[in-house]
Amino acid sequence: MVFRLPKGFRFAGVHCGVKSDPNNRDLTLVVSDTPAVAAGVYTRNLVFAAPVAVDRARTPCDEIRAVVVNSGNANACTGKRGQADALRMAELAAAVCSAPAEAGLVMSTGIIGEFMPMEKIEKGIASAAEQLGDDADAFDAAARGMLTTDTVTKVSSRELTIGGNEVCIAGMAKGAAMIGPNMATMLGLILTDAAISKENAQAVLASAIADSFNCISVEGHTSTNDTVLLLANGSAETALLAGDDLTAFSAAVAEVCQELAKAIPADGEGATHLITIEVTGAAGRDEAFKIAKTVANSPLVKTAVTGADPNWGRIVSAAGYAGVPFDPTKVNLQVNGIPLYEAGSPLEFDEEAASKSIADNRDTLVELQFGEGNGFARFWTTDLTAEYVRLNADYHT
Amino acid sequence: MVFRLPKGFRFAGVHCGVKSDPNNRDLTLVVSDTPAVAAGVYTRNLVFAAPVAVDRARTPCDEIRAVVVNSGNANACTGKRGQADALRMAELAAAVCSAPAEAGLVMSTGIIGEFMPMEKIEKGIASAAEQLGDDADAFDAAARGMLTTDTVTKVSSRELTIGGNEVCIAGMAKGAAMIGPNMATMLGLILTDAAISKENAQAVLASAIADSFNCISVEGHTSTNDTVLLLANGSAETALLAGDDLTAFSAAVAEVCQELAKAIPADGEGATHLITIEVTGAAGRDEAFKIAKTVANSPLVKTAVTGADPNWGRIVSAAGYAGVPFDPTKVNLQVNGIPLYEAGSPLEFDEEAASKSIADNRDTLVELQFGEGNGFARFWTTDLTAEYVRLNADYHT
Repeated sequence: MVFRLPKGFRFAGVHCGVKSDPNNRDLTLVVSDTPAVAAGVYTRNLVFAAPVAVDRARTPCDEIRAVVVNSGNANACTGKRGQADALRMAELAAAVCSAPAEAGLVMSTGIIGEFMPMEKIEKGIASAAEQLGDDADAFDAAARGMLTTDTVTKVSSRELTIGGNEVCIAGMAKGAAMIGPNMATMLGLILTDAAISKENAQAVLASAIADSFNCISVEGHTSTNDTVLLLANGSAETALLAGDDLTAFSAAVAEVCQELAKAIPADGEGATHLITIEVTGAAGRDEAFKIAKTVANSPLVKTAVTGADPNWGRIVSAAGYAGVPFDPTKVNLQVNGIPLYEAGSPLEFDEEAASKSIADNRDTLVELQFGEGNGFARFWTTDLTAEYVRLNADYHT
Repeated sequence: MVFRLPKGFRFAGVHCGVKSDPNNRDLTLVVSDTPAVAAGVYTRNLVFAAPVAVDRARTPCDEIRAVVVNSGNANACTGKRGQADALRMAELAAAVCSAPAEAGLVMSTGIIGEFMPMEKIEKGIASAAEQLGDDADAFDAAARGMLTTDTVTKVSSRELTIGGNEVCIAGMAKGAAMIGPNMATMLGLILTDAAISKENAQAVLASAIADSFNCISVEGHTSTNDTVLLLANGSAETALLAGDDLTAFSAAVAEVCQELAKAIPADGEGATHLITIEVTGAAGRDEAFKIAKTVANSPLVKTAVTGADPNWGRIVSAAGYAGVPFDPTKVNLQVNGIPLYEAGSPLEFDEEAASKSIADNRDTLVELQFGEGNGFARFWTTDLTAEYVRLNADYHT
């Protein structure tokens, strides 16, 4: 990792024993030297985990000092005891900075339906507190502590100058779909030294997520624990963001979120392709989004990409059942830039070349144009492989 | 096949060369000796095939004499030429009975984006006309002519007495999901010798389909060609169905449709389980249906069944993202009759016994109870296997 980090934050990632393998970090602690504005966006699943309940009730606010994240146990479907455990985790994290309980936030990911091993967690937070650092190694350790079946860390950053001062945004995320009995989750933590009101922080985060974390899927199963937090501690000593500065900051946060979000299907379980679906010319953004998401979640589209088949029929017919009205005679389609379908009819094309372009590239680009308006959306997903099925069916044996 | 057949219909199924293997029947012809009332229900996909356009414009009506079905080519995304071909197929079928073009209906399933080989089809209809018969062998041949990747024929029948006369309903269907570049479709043809008005026929069919063909999925990809037709020719010489007789008839048609519909995921590509999702206690039927369908279409639920894992977390969390409000603390779940989850919390249960009950049975029953009202729905789907992925990804090699 070669990027700058926002001022006034310290990071740690340790192994505390929630996961059995001692080489796997399973607890992350991030603290802010001063009270930070915090915003959050959470899973829409009605069955949500205890940490989601805690953070949702606390954000947006302007007094957060610490975030603790554990992997290996999601603290979901754990009732009142789980709720108490989540509150206690946030309290212990805040106590690292001698801050009141309410200054802590908490995220969890891993097995659901099991109680959190609080003794291990307490020791883990104490150990992480001793290892806090503000360098790239500490940030990397923190990014590792939240991983479950991920094969790589997911990090991203942007810098911008505001009122003559350097402002930095750095983010970490995890997610790769599911394995074993885990309900693997999408978690994200975006940190910045910019100064921003809590209302604007919430709006900036919500807007960034609409075009990033909400536009990805691996298999379309929404987790109980999905959480993305934004912490802004103002250590860059700028004025409160407003006007053009706020717009520029918002764009940079959106870029960070998009980079982190794309890294999730790119690291999808068993995946051999990252598929990008770009829809243009839909009636509006909602219509474009629905079509892109429906195409992305079609197992037939996914398996066609797995098999390097430029199967326009599966793509166009998936668009057709998205529940969005459109004129089928105005639909065009390109895969990896190769036109396959135009004005509602299949084109003659070099099938071998099209297949080779899918087989030879990890990225597949599916572009669908409609003749309804200016609606645009982009969605990222994985292909679907026999290895994915094995990972999610045969984990018992 | 040991069941009686409705009077006044004749059947044939032949090989005409749309499919390359001469042992595979690929054309079905069904004629009614007298003009029959016909009702139809069609795919909701905006990208629909030419035969769907033809039949949708013609039904409901009371003058149908013949239905031709071909497999191997779906006549979808074939533009004006495809439309003319579909009209011509219906016309040729009607001509077998010396009836006007409008007395014919047509269904197609198979590869999309290729023109229908009309010369082969014409010869096939002529050959089928010579082989028409009214016995079980002829019905079986007709049931075979519509199959694509199906491994078995799907047939069902019911008899009932109306006004002292025997009335018979017999149905055939095809569907097993997709393979190769085929957009394998769900087709159904229900035949009866009852006498019914075209309005009632349409209502009876629509109602039957709501709880049968609309409650199944293999991978949730809606085809361009889905069609179910009901033909009633009145040969049983009863009065027009009304009152209690109509109710009894409607129930019998619903049973036939449900038997045919269930046979589709039971024969799903690569499937090792037929999964039945039963939702009770939802706010209403729509809510129950949405939850059942969402659980059925979760790849994580499907792969858990493949792996014989009684994974309550995947099931309950899938219900949680169905987009239907419910109180998570009032949710109960049983799998194969074994209680796994109660009042929003996981129960202690014998995991080995629960796993064995999934592994040892082809049928898996998932029962979800909510505390919202009296809404009930039942949905059938397959599990998701590595073999399914291979069939749908590696058909090129």
